[in-house]
Amino acid sequence: MNSEQDLINYLKKFNIHNKKIITGVGDDCSIIKFDDKKKYVFTTDTSLLGPHFSNDYSPEEIGYKALATNISDIASMGCIPLYAMYALTLPKMSSSWIKKFFKGTKLLLDKYKITIIGGDTTKGPLSITIQLVGVQYKNILTRDGANLGDDIYVTGTLGGARAALISKKGTKAHEYFRKKLVKPEPRIQIGLELSSFATSCIDISDGLAKDLKNIAKASKKGFEVDIDLIPTDSKFNNYIKPDKREECLLGGGEDYELCFKASKNNINKINNIKRKNKINITKIGFVTRSRCRYTKNGKAYKVQTMGYDHFQSP
Amino acid sequence: MNSEQDLINYLKKFNIHNKKIITGVGDDCSIIKFDDKKKYVFTTDTSLLGPHFSNDYSPEEIGYKALATNISDIASMGCIPLYAMYALTLPKMSSSWIKKFFKGTKLLLDKYKITIIGGDTTKGPLSITIQLVGVQYKNILTRDGANLGDDIYVTGTLGGARAALISKKGTKAHEYFRKKLVKPEPRIQIGLELSSFATSCIDISDGLAKDLKNIAKASKKGFEVDIDLIPTDSKFNNYIKPDKREECLLGGGEDYELCFKASKNNINKINNIKRKNKINITKIGFVTRSRCRYTKNGKAYKVQTMGYDHFQSP
Repeated sequence: MNSEQDLINYLKKFNIHNKKIITGVGDDCSIIKFDDKKKYVFTTDTSLLGPHFSNDYSPEEIGYKALATNISDIASMGCIPLYAMYALTLPKMSSSWIKKFFKGTKLLLDKYKITIIGGDTTKGPLSITIQLVGVQYKNILTRDGANLGDDIYVTGTLGGARAALISKKGTKAHEYFRKKLVKPEPRIQIGLELSSFATSCIDISDGLAKDLKNIAKASKKGFEVDIDLIPTDSKFNNYIKPDKREECLLGGGEDYELCFKASKNNINKINNIKRKNKINITKIGFVTRSRCRYTKNGKAYKVQTMGYDHFQSP
Repeated sequence: MNSEQDLINYLKKFNIHNKKIITGVGDDCSIIKFDDKKKYVFTTDTSLLGPHFSNDYSPEEIGYKALATNISDIASMGCIPLYAMYALTLPKMSSSWIKKFFKGTKLLLDKYKITIIGGDTTKGPLSITIQLVGVQYKNILTRDGANLGDDIYVTGTLGGARAALISKKGTKAHEYFRKKLVKPEPRIQIGLELSSFATSCIDISDGLAKDLKNIAKASKKGFEVDIDLIPTDSKFNNYIKPDKREECLLGGGEDYELCFKASKNNINKINNIKRKNKINITKIGFVTRSRCRYTKNGKAYKVQTMGYDHFQSP
């Protein structure tokens, strides 16, 4: 066992006791069918100093981002977020810090009408684990539904979060991209609109290369992606040198955009979503039988980055 | 904001967006009614080196106890545990440690037919946050249902976990009581049997004094408890000096026994549960209108201990 994926594979062994579990360990959320018409989705994410936020984050920003990353998992399933539980480990009980933290959280609670239903507090090195429960809207989008010939799309622009991370603090580049890193916008509305026709979906949290691989593996398909088509912010090429662009676009996660697949006859629906939500949605490739291939300048291209892994990345 | 309770009170403000929430922040579990006949309960608990386990715990023991404490919250609601999510923060990815950890966990997964449905792994100081979902069996037992004149009962014996903690490692007392501290038995079966008639219930995780206070406050009632009636292990008085007994019985948590209230006409049902499950169930007092009072040797007694608080206890 060396990586997060090894542990996920190990945990799948414990997925045995209950017929109401539609999807267990291994997707962005698990899916449970109670004795109800609708299915519910469950996700949990821990945020730590270091991998998820740094000392220059304000408590509001930590409170916002810790919840945003969980909401993004619900968005990638095309579901509606409902309930949150907060397990907080705090170095000390500071009213001021806690109020600021929840001020950041509340922006998202209010926007998405999410209720905090419970939690736990302990004393120790700062750590925030949030569990979120969501409910089915139309279809639930999983990683395993991609069909041969489906087009592959991404929302928004990629690379901004990583661009902020690799730019020195105080530089114009860092200031420009920092909001992408610190205040990602979970794509709930887009996920809901995609849920009637997309065949699979994932949120880009660990880098497009890793997330594409995950979706290909789950769907037992391949992909061909043209790196030149990956949408970036208009200032991305100004600020980020050519030798760092691949890392930002494919290796760096935390953009929390959606990557989804849909059959070609949904192009009008996708254009409507773009118009209605004033958002970029860009086709970057298509689903193949089994080969996973990138192109750049019209030629096959070997991607170096592997995406983020808590136990393997530097 | 100084204590865990202050934070819990603060979090209740966020409990506003949804009519399906029967009980939100403040009980052992939150209770949610989906569009289903049954209600579901949700709980989360973090286990850390220091407050929850020490360096002499084996990985199996950590894996067992981290889940047992969560199951105990479901037991205190009289519900059936169903699904678990594991958010693990690990200093390194060690196959051997992880397999031993889940070996401990699996004892309880198998016994209670609980499925791990998902989780998250991050790298950092060891921290285990588990979320557990359970389902209603008969009534759901909350903290707020105690009625004037109800008898107050506890299951098993109290004080053993604290007795282990305050005894020096290597001593006979520590060896004798260590199992109580490290391998508590969640009282699921007793909770289920109580769920048809008990009026309120809590699991004794933070010390009887604090847990009695919580139940009294939630029920807007008082209590009178005779300290001499609190059941202890037959060797408790041999091993624990008189000046430490109050701390063990009332201040020390982690016994994970149930404290419940029931009206006097349930005595036969309680005797049946005792016989059937071969367990002690002991009446220790009764519910009063509003006064909270302890007696010892037939006289009023002032309890010094406040119970465990992560931010106030030494």
